[in-house]
Amino acid sequence: MKSERPLILVSNDDGITAPGIRALIEAVSELGEVVIVAPDAPQSGMGHAVTISKPLRLDKTDIYESLVAYQCSGTPADCVKLAVDKVLHRKPDLLVSGINHGSNSSINVLYSGTMSAAMEGAIEGIPSVGFSLCNFAYDADFTAAKKIVKIIAQNIIKNGLPVGTLLNVNIPNVSEKDLNGVKICRQALAKWQEEFDERKDPNGRKYYWLTGKFVNRDKGEDTDEWALANNFVSVVPVHFDLTAHHSISFLNGWELDSVLGK
Amino acid sequence: MKSERPLILVSNDDGITAPGIRALIEAVSELGEVVIVAPDAPQSGMGHAVTISKPLRLDKTDIYESLVAYQCSGTPADCVKLAVDKVLHRKPDLLVSGINHGSNSSINVLYSGTMSAAMEGAIEGIPSVGFSLCNFAYDADFTAAKKIVKIIAQNIIKNGLPVGTLLNVNIPNVSEKDLNGVKICRQALAKWQEEFDERKDPNGRKYYWLTGKFVNRDKGEDTDEWALANNFVSVVPVHFDLTAHHSISFLNGWELDSVLGK
Repeated sequence: MKSERPLILVSNDDGITAPGIRALIEAVSELGEVVIVAPDAPQSGMGHAVTISKPLRLDKTDIYESLVAYQCSGTPADCVKLAVDKVLHRKPDLLVSGINHGSNSSINVLYSGTMSAAMEGAIEGIPSVGFSLCNFAYDADFTAAKKIVKIIAQNIIKNGLPVGTLLNVNIPNVSEKDLNGVKICRQALAKWQEEFDERKDPNGRKYYWLTGKFVNRDKGEDTDEWALANNFVSVVPVHFDLTAHHSISFLNGWELDSVLGK
Repeated sequence: MKSERPLILVSNDDGITAPGIRALIEAVSELGEVVIVAPDAPQSGMGHAVTISKPLRLDKTDIYESLVAYQCSGTPADCVKLAVDKVLHRKPDLLVSGINHGSNSSINVLYSGTMSAAMEGAIEGIPSVGFSLCNFAYDADFTAAKKIVKIIAQNIIKNGLPVGTLLNVNIPNVSEKDLNGVKICRQALAKWQEEFDERKDPNGRKYYWLTGKFVNRDKGEDTDEWALANNFVSVVPVHFDLTAHHSISFLNGWELDSVLGK
């Protein structure tokens, strides 16, 4: 039996040219054979969108020199689906997504294209992880983040992940010497307080721009928000079974069949 | 204290003119004061996307005659956010989304714009529910679906929902007399087996179109797929805490801090 190097699929949502994906590729490139399939343009805030009503482009690019890399006109979830169906010849041993420019902690996991690539990987049965650095700047410093990526990727390759579980890793925006460690956490139950900025276009018609304030009323010290505020890297195990199992018995108390005369 | 009629926010992802949202409005209009904020064009497959890199339009429309209705250029999640911030003067007592033309059972909850409107409502603390009819046709028969919508909406208004729980309701495509009842279920752990259709454009360049086959290996009789296959309406309680709590102890066994010299 031939012993193959681990096959590592890389994607993101900031687009294939973002500094974050370059840092991610550098961090994992010595761990295995790297294949990149990422959006050809930024896709932040795409949530778990897939493109069903228009065609997709998938073009080879040599921007990562000797590495196999494709840019795709679709969403991060589309990239993973296309990689599995059209690019890769076997199931990858690891999918890494990111490194996102900006946090994807707490409720942001739902809105995040970075995490949707990882979620799609997990649905495909690939051990998957999304990485985000809590710094939106184009020229953010990914030095510490790269070390975190590497140790977590090594652990996943060595230990695997429980079936149906992916990881949401957020890295505080501090230098390596100020990092206090890595904490396994739960998702903080926080939300965005929307505030749409109302403006007028040059023709006098109103338009709105999404803005907002992040509000965290979850004071738990086992949450990702607590970890990040205390200079820990947060690692949240995530799954795609959205069933609120604890609510099933409550709902079983409702009389619903009567409407059907049953 | 003035006793107000329940305030009901209506949205969807097939667009404000879809027959499904018209059926939904008819089903809930006698239960309270109805306000509609829905996309101005179809948004299927948008997952939990939000629009952050471009402006949004929100325009009043009189297509629902005496009812307050707005069409929005954004995603279903954008519609709910804009409704809460710019249209409604108080928190609604109920959010209903749909009726989607096509199933949103099982893993489709992740890709569904209909469910993302309901998810956004739940994040806002609004009792929320998404309805889908397992029939993609424009001229689908919503007669039985309307009865199901009404009884579930009445129950939510009367009993509320547990904090952080929303409902994913799918209705099989059969006549009322063939419906066997309403079942509270868990999300079946199924997936889509991707198959991208590869084509050539008029200039000879390749493009891909997403297609695929739904594969359900989850044989549980407590799942939404089982319920639908057996002519039951499926009701899955859903939450937006994606933490895979059962995986926390597994991850706590990893040695991660060593990379930081801690």
